[in-house]
Amino acid sequence: MNHYRLTLSYDGTDYAGWQAQAGENTIQQNVEEALAVLFREPTRLHASGRTDRGVHARAQEAHFSAENAFPRPQKLRRALNALLPDTIRIQRAVPVEESFHARFSAIRKEYRYFIWNGEVMPPFLRNYRLHARRKLNLDAMRSAAERLQGTHDFAAFTANPKRDVSSTVRILNELSVSKKGNEIQLRAVANGFLYKMVRSLAGGLVRVGLGELKPEEMTRILESRERTARIPTALPQGLFLWKVTY
Amino acid sequence: MNHYRLTLSYDGTDYAGWQAQAGENTIQQNVEEALAVLFREPTRLHASGRTDRGVHARAQEAHFSAENAFPRPQKLRRALNALLPDTIRIQRAVPVEESFHARFSAIRKEYRYFIWNGEVMPPFLRNYRLHARRKLNLDAMRSAAERLQGTHDFAAFTANPKRDVSSTVRILNELSVSKKGNEIQLRAVANGFLYKMVRSLAGGLVRVGLGELKPEEMTRILESRERTARIPTALPQGLFLWKVTY
Repeated sequence: MNHYRLTLSYDGTDYAGWQAQAGENTIQQNVEEALAVLFREPTRLHASGRTDRGVHARAQEAHFSAENAFPRPQKLRRALNALLPDTIRIQRAVPVEESFHARFSAIRKEYRYFIWNGEVMPPFLRNYRLHARRKLNLDAMRSAAERLQGTHDFAAFTANPKRDVSSTVRILNELSVSKKGNEIQLRAVANGFLYKMVRSLAGGLVRVGLGELKPEEMTRILESRERTARIPTALPQGLFLWKVTY
Repeated sequence: MNHYRLTLSYDGTDYAGWQAQAGENTIQQNVEEALAVLFREPTRLHASGRTDRGVHARAQEAHFSAENAFPRPQKLRRALNALLPDTIRIQRAVPVEESFHARFSAIRKEYRYFIWNGEVMPPFLRNYRLHARRKLNLDAMRSAAERLQGTHDFAAFTANPKRDVSSTVRILNELSVSKKGNEIQLRAVANGFLYKMVRSLAGGLVRVGLGELKPEEMTRILESRERTARIPTALPQGLFLWKVTY
């Protein structure tokens, strides 16, 4: 068997997320179809994790194995990009050892969530930013973010805790808030994320920024380990899978 | 009569340019329809200049006059944005003196042309950049750009010199080339531009960057005052109307 690793960027706007599903246009299905053409065999692609409908990736990672070898591996990236829609781009395609697993070998993942905090959304960013018209309180958001950093049970910040069978404890190495002009960037780095966890963290932080939640309440919500309606799931279009570290 | 000035941003990707045309979806027509709703009369919008199919605007300027006054002028921007598609945004809507004319009062215009100079185009930029895979020679491009700056007859750099009846002489105050990472930015500032002039300048500079034209040849082409096939019109998606100065 031949093993390969892919690094992908995609604009999630018009996709029903990563995972192949009957009757839906997904990232996985598009890339698997291109691989099937080039390798002349059905090929299953394994990502570092799923991304939801409308979520983007700057650098998603994936691996696959094939019976057939690609005759010119240094041309694999270009051949895949020639077959794929321009909303999905292969940044890197390289042979890899069999032991590499895009999901299980990952030691850290980084997501970024972008918010346009101004009256008028630039039309070029409409698919890539959450729009918050009212000015958000950065100090309050930073105070809340600091309370969420570290090793915690994040059951209160996932849409479906039972989907993750083993544990809802994660190490959130970083949750930071920065601003440049009208653009606010949330940066979340962890050993792994629960289902819709980043969008829940972002949703909570935006409510804090709006003054609808106090930073101290985030600690109580975290400790409750119960999902509450006070933590909304922020819209998908602001979210980017930024980097996976192995 | 009541007079207003609008500053607009738009994503030109899905529009047949600025100018209203029967059977085409244009920026002008969309904004005029929104104005007709708010002012309860047919309203003609005058821009600083047309932009072509697929060209974007960071800050287009326009004016219009209406018999009816808008009862709450400070809410005009928001009311227009509520009616417009999110690919067209009003950044500013203010009452203005009758003497203001978006086209004739303009003293300077700035366009920027963006090139992604790397093997793989990021999917998020696909509608906003020209893609040049081969590395462009920046020094050669800068040398060519310098030769084009100043007051010249730019007949060799317009798609249709007869469209501009009076004169093809323009004052090109600035034509500069800068690069950050894989992104090249061309900045063109002039008292006015001929039809497809910026895209012709960009097309010529890209050919120089590829080594297909020498910087010195740009001087000869300029002096010939004749359009030649050696100057291609660069694709519209890299072009942004950046700023109009009054």
